[in-house]
Amino acid sequence: MENIYQLVNEELDLINTGIKDIIANPIPLINDISNHTTITGGKKLRSLTVLLSAKCFDSINQNILDLATVIEFFHISSLLHDDVIDNANTRRGHTAAHMIWGNKASILVGDYIFSKAFQLLAKIHNQRILTILANTSNIITQGEIQQLLYVNNPDISIEQYIEIIHHKTAVLFEAATQMGPILANAEEEDINAMAQFGHYLGRAFQIIDDILDYSSSSSDLGKQIGNDLGEGKITIPLIYAIQESSIKEKNLIKQAIQNSSYDKLDQIIEIINKTDAIALSRKLAVQQIDHAVTHLLKIANSTYRDALEELAEFVLSRSH
Amino acid sequence: MENIYQLVNEELDLINTGIKDIIANPIPLINDISNHTTITGGKKLRSLTVLLSAKCFDSINQNILDLATVIEFFHISSLLHDDVIDNANTRRGHTAAHMIWGNKASILVGDYIFSKAFQLLAKIHNQRILTILANTSNIITQGEIQQLLYVNNPDISIEQYIEIIHHKTAVLFEAATQMGPILANAEEEDINAMAQFGHYLGRAFQIIDDILDYSSSSSDLGKQIGNDLGEGKITIPLIYAIQESSIKEKNLIKQAIQNSSYDKLDQIIEIINKTDAIALSRKLAVQQIDHAVTHLLKIANSTYRDALEELAEFVLSRSH
Repeated sequence: MENIYQLVNEELDLINTGIKDIIANPIPLINDISNHTTITGGKKLRSLTVLLSAKCFDSINQNILDLATVIEFFHISSLLHDDVIDNANTRRGHTAAHMIWGNKASILVGDYIFSKAFQLLAKIHNQRILTILANTSNIITQGEIQQLLYVNNPDISIEQYIEIIHHKTAVLFEAATQMGPILANAEEEDINAMAQFGHYLGRAFQIIDDILDYSSSSSDLGKQIGNDLGEGKITIPLIYAIQESSIKEKNLIKQAIQNSSYDKLDQIIEIINKTDAIALSRKLAVQQIDHAVTHLLKIANSTYRDALEELAEFVLSRSH
Repeated sequence: MENIYQLVNEELDLINTGIKDIIANPIPLINDISNHTTITGGKKLRSLTVLLSAKCFDSINQNILDLATVIEFFHISSLLHDDVIDNANTRRGHTAAHMIWGNKASILVGDYIFSKAFQLLAKIHNQRILTILANTSNIITQGEIQQLLYVNNPDISIEQYIEIIHHKTAVLFEAATQMGPILANAEEEDINAMAQFGHYLGRAFQIIDDILDYSSSSSDLGKQIGNDLGEGKITIPLIYAIQESSIKEKNLIKQAIQNSSYDKLDQIIEIINKTDAIALSRKLAVQQIDHAVTHLLKIANSTYRDALEELAEFVLSRSH
């Protein structure tokens, strides 16, 4: 991955400085939470995909840098609300913001960062980008609500799971890989291919995230393992585990989901291993990446297309 | 007020139908919370001011109707988050949404309704409107955060209080009365006058709101009296009461604010009465309305200007 980041290193530095400047605020609480969440916000995969997707077609301009920042702000803002909703203790090995500053501050600073994205978007001054992001933000909130409605419900199909991850995760990756090319004045055909690439990349990213919640070590993951189980949220490894296990085992898993209980985590992980649920889930992720790459290869070859292909492979191999 | 609503009755009906259509969603939870919050959202003063402000200059077009809806959505979305933040039990005599559907659903449906405003705004397709609303949403969140930071702090000056109500309430009224004329192609001078009108109207509206929390009957107000006290939030009646009372009385009020405690509400209301704190607060509100009307009278006379002047008087006289 190091070499991929290197390709847009200068731009990422500009974005990081920009993010700090934009969220700088005389109110210390806003600064503290914003900085904390930016630091714990991870690998900046979303802005990386904006930059690489744009560079496949043209050099980077200020609007593209601003757009990458908008996408990061969307993500950070939704993390702040998510952590409150999920009552998560940690985020990527750091204490979650709401555990330090409280739920109220996290909700409001989430709203604040979203409003910053909104201001930056007004500055970009592009009707198509505005419409895509408005629709994206609407679909993400729908996905979060759907996910909330499925809490403690173990009877969810693979199709329903795919619909949720499409809404809550894939649309933002899709927006990222689609809007870079739009601002780089790419052809419609290429814009569509890139949108599809981002869409399937986002699906795979979420599937791997859900796999890591049962198969990573806590120190790698930066948060407690079995987190989704403790939140009563059923994800793909458990869907396969239920599908492939005995009636007794099915009931054990279903009860844990219904009760948001970690208590039987060890037994559940045994069932996951016995039923090959991780391998089945990984297969589903590999299928998504195959789709993603098929669409990616429709655009002209370049260093940046190669980098996006490598990024797609990285999504499959990441361990946290 | 009846005659004011009558002036834009048809448009308000269109907006109400539009709101229902826009928030209609196959997910019942979204529908239920949205409808509940729309019903409990009150007198639609903000969309009323958009419509009347536009009508001072031109007839109403679809963009102005959409804008009035955007403003209502901003307001409804912030109510949903506010009720969670304030832990309020009721809203205008109805049970607050988060008491029925939970905090998580209220936060997410608040985000959902904001995203609907965002989509509608993209449809209006006007760069100046977009910039004003992005800035407005940023200032509102700053105001909410400032207010949170002052919780349990009784040592707040009138100037700090005015700054908070400016941010959390006045800017949205200012946006409403400014953007109607912008979309009605008014002259810059008139747009500025209307912005100032809305600004001072919003200040007065919030001051009266804060007065009613200590002087209205609970059945009129539709929520418990002394609510702000119970949330540890100091507002203008208590700022004056502290200013005008004995050291012993000052300490009693300050301790109630520090402890978010209703316990001494009766004694505090006695101090409020003794110190004329309500009359002093009303005087401050009257000053704001005087400023508002001075700005309003800069624009050409019309039935709609008269209606806005009457609306300003109504803000002072309302009992809930």
